[in-house]
Amino acid sequence: MKLATLRTERGPRPAVLREHPSGSLAAGYVDLRDADSELPMSLRGLLAEWDQVRDRVQRALETARQVIPIDQAAFHAPVPDPEKIVCLGLNYREHAIESHMPIPEEPVFFSKFNPALAGHGEPVRLPRVCEQPDYEAELVVVIGKPGYRIPREQAFAHVAGYAVGNDVSARDWQFRNAGKQWLAGKTFPTFAPVGPHLVTADEVPDPHALRIALRLNGQTVQDSTTAELIFRIDETIHRLSTIVPLASGDLIFTGTPSGVGASRKPPLWIKPGDVMEVEIERLGVLRNDCVDGG
Amino acid sequence: MKLATLRTERGPRPAVLREHPSGSLAAGYVDLRDADSELPMSLRGLLAEWDQVRDRVQRALETARQVIPIDQAAFHAPVPDPEKIVCLGLNYREHAIESHMPIPEEPVFFSKFNPALAGHGEPVRLPRVCEQPDYEAELVVVIGKPGYRIPREQAFAHVAGYAVGNDVSARDWQFRNAGKQWLAGKTFPTFAPVGPHLVTADEVPDPHALRIALRLNGQTVQDSTTAELIFRIDETIHRLSTIVPLASGDLIFTGTPSGVGASRKPPLWIKPGDVMEVEIERLGVLRNDCVDGG
Repeated sequence: MKLATLRTERGPRPAVLREHPSGSLAAGYVDLRDADSELPMSLRGLLAEWDQVRDRVQRALETARQVIPIDQAAFHAPVPDPEKIVCLGLNYREHAIESHMPIPEEPVFFSKFNPALAGHGEPVRLPRVCEQPDYEAELVVVIGKPGYRIPREQAFAHVAGYAVGNDVSARDWQFRNAGKQWLAGKTFPTFAPVGPHLVTADEVPDPHALRIALRLNGQTVQDSTTAELIFRIDETIHRLSTIVPLASGDLIFTGTPSGVGASRKPPLWIKPGDVMEVEIERLGVLRNDCVDGG
Repeated sequence: MKLATLRTERGPRPAVLREHPSGSLAAGYVDLRDADSELPMSLRGLLAEWDQVRDRVQRALETARQVIPIDQAAFHAPVPDPEKIVCLGLNYREHAIESHMPIPEEPVFFSKFNPALAGHGEPVRLPRVCEQPDYEAELVVVIGKPGYRIPREQAFAHVAGYAVGNDVSARDWQFRNAGKQWLAGKTFPTFAPVGPHLVTADEVPDPHALRIALRLNGQTVQDSTTAELIFRIDETIHRLSTIVPLASGDLIFTGTPSGVGASRKPPLWIKPGDVMEVEIERLGVLRNDCVDGG
């Protein structure tokens, strides 16, 4: 299934996508609360009860008569209110090399705050205080079943699904503080676009075999495959959950392949008017236009 | 006022402390929802509407007949569910020097996740995978009124109050990853004790003139004053809010003075059985016992 959180006049609404017309039923997004008022109010709430509500979501998808046409949908990030946004740095070998950083022997975890989230189609606002804004195509893992100290062999049982992400990064802010902590450069508002959908795990037979690419103004600037991940998804969940309990709806940005703007000569910084499209096989295209953030 | 979130059989409950008996009214904690069922369900909710609810909280404090005796109170962190936990590193000159780090010219921001929060009196669980757990006494600022790009001269209008905090840190995990990102070492469960109270700003005329100390098993190991903060609270709020919008209930750990275990020769690591007490003038004592975290 393809789940989303839609931006509506009534606020954020969890929805499921009917991709094709079915009999007399039109294609489009089914507002899950309209279809079944006993379902949770948020996608995070749905994920927390997924085993109990999955069949009802499927039923809503198959039977709801009212849909929001696909071309009229506006998106929040699929989970707009996670307990945690965890990001991995340097998780593709070629990107670690282009960044002049050692190949990690431990996962490099950092974080973003929730106001950084943005949906598919939302503008990424580039603050004028950021002189070196950059893009990073990333596979995002969405946690379903909570867990702590999860063994590697059970890790995939905790994955609800996957989404396309873009770890937008202001390189000047990322590196200029004395402690070299990356958070500041990573968490400006709208610097974490995710979406359009959370694609449930059953639709992604092998998350380590997905082509991942980023096009800037139509030109491909990153092009790799998740086969190149240094720390695999199950290893990442195992190691991360050794540190912190994972909650339903938590987002894990799994790192970016080579080709970021900071490593080009001359560097390639994104600017107002630019269009970023991240595409991951089976998961879709996340498009965000860059605008002046004032 | 001294606000708290109490741990009760009915779940977390916002409360206010009546410090002394008043006429026929006993000292103790007033459960704010019991006293006034129209008040918000959480301290974060109270802070979001503080200007509207302040008088009603005061009335509950002055009139409620039923209290929880002070010696029977059990505590969550005052705000157990903030949108953000932001921490400053290297924000006392002597601590930057003892850490062999440059004196910062920009604030060094990092973060913890919410499962790290613990209340006064809750045990700090030291995981066996952490070989170098350490303590850090810190003044915690609690945000009241939300804001983005807050001018320095308006910063204190966004402060709801202050609390005592302890930025527990596993030094081995903090420094061993290739990117030198501190998050992993900072965010194990219970590594962010805060409390017992949120002391409202009106009770703290000068937050830059508070003695701050940490006693380990009764022996003073940190002893300084918030006068030594490199980035003042108003400067920190100004600079942080340049990066990210601040929300009601956000916690800002403002950094620790010198005397941490990592800088001692030999190093002094905390261990199960140890008792940590952080004391800040006007704000009280935050006590947490260390236990084996398995």
